[in-house]
Amino acid sequence: MRTYSKRDFPVANVRRLLEPGPIVLVSSAWQGARNIMTMGWHTVMEFEPALVGCIIAEGNHSHGMIKRSRECVINVPTADLAKEVVGIGNCSGADVDKFAAFKLTAGDALRVKAPLITECYANLECKLVDAKLVSSYNFFIFEVVKARAATSPKYPRTLHYRGDGAFMLSGREVSLRAMFRPENL
Amino acid sequence: MRTYSKRDFPVANVRRLLEPGPIVLVSSAWQGARNIMTMGWHTVMEFEPALVGCIIAEGNHSHGMIKRSRECVINVPTADLAKEVVGIGNCSGADVDKFAAFKLTAGDALRVKAPLITECYANLECKLVDAKLVSSYNFFIFEVVKARAATSPKYPRTLHYRGDGAFMLSGREVSLRAMFRPENL
Repeated sequence: MRTYSKRDFPVANVRRLLEPGPIVLVSSAWQGARNIMTMGWHTVMEFEPALVGCIIAEGNHSHGMIKRSRECVINVPTADLAKEVVGIGNCSGADVDKFAAFKLTAGDALRVKAPLITECYANLECKLVDAKLVSSYNFFIFEVVKARAATSPKYPRTLHYRGDGAFMLSGREVSLRAMFRPENL
Repeated sequence: MRTYSKRDFPVANVRRLLEPGPIVLVSSAWQGARNIMTMGWHTVMEFEPALVGCIIAEGNHSHGMIKRSRECVINVPTADLAKEVVGIGNCSGADVDKFAAFKLTAGDALRVKAPLITECYANLECKLVDAKLVSSYNFFIFEVVKARAATSPKYPRTLHYRGDGAFMLSGREVSLRAMFRPENL
């Protein structure tokens, strides 16, 4: 499986990874167990603190683990992990150790106890900072407290889920920087 | 400018348009004025009711218009509108009628008073259903009450913002449907 050489990534810039809308893998740990879920419903909420809001439905085994541990890692997989992304969404952490089942490497995070997924392009270590909308909407607000990302390629070939088994792969990169007012970049 | 032939789109399926993470144009109206903003921070929150959460910063002229009217239209532009997407983000509705400035057609929505943008691939008419997190995070929770989308092409060539003037264009479409358990599609 592909590995990436990574370096520290400024947390205030995580929009560069998440705003394009990739499907992500969320890893968590609680009381000796670890888990991974596939997640597509997330949004950047603020640059600093670096906030990310996510829907983690109650039916997911990860829901309780993250609510209790108040931590997770948001991992950005690339297209070479498509089968793992689907497979992880197809089974429950209540039955399976998904790191073992999908031959993924659980790396040590620096700021949270949840494991990160070494094979992913980026690892965003998150602490739950606001659980007010968890009971009403399953909406978790995390602060990214530490981030690492691959140094190459510059832009990852990410997977974007459309529902119904259909994925869009990230395509061509275009800079329209010259058209922007600097304060709006 | 390109036009699309559209038909009704089931609101419970708006994830097919929004989950891949396109930049969108949000149109609104209040007391005789109308406006458009460019927005990249949004997430699907529920299938039924069809909920979408969005960050609309207080500095945006649209913030007050949407908070007061409690309505908007989320329009999905395609790559042919890249210059308009950037231009709309570069100026304020306090100074400019953006429909006129960018030669966009304000169409009548069916369920809200906010105008829709005829040139976009899809128009999602939204009502503000929860403003609890507006004061703390500028986070608006909308219900999509009516949606229309183009019938062709099947998948729009959307723009995905990375920050810093860089856009990713939606790329290749891949179906992994055969790998899914039906209940997880």
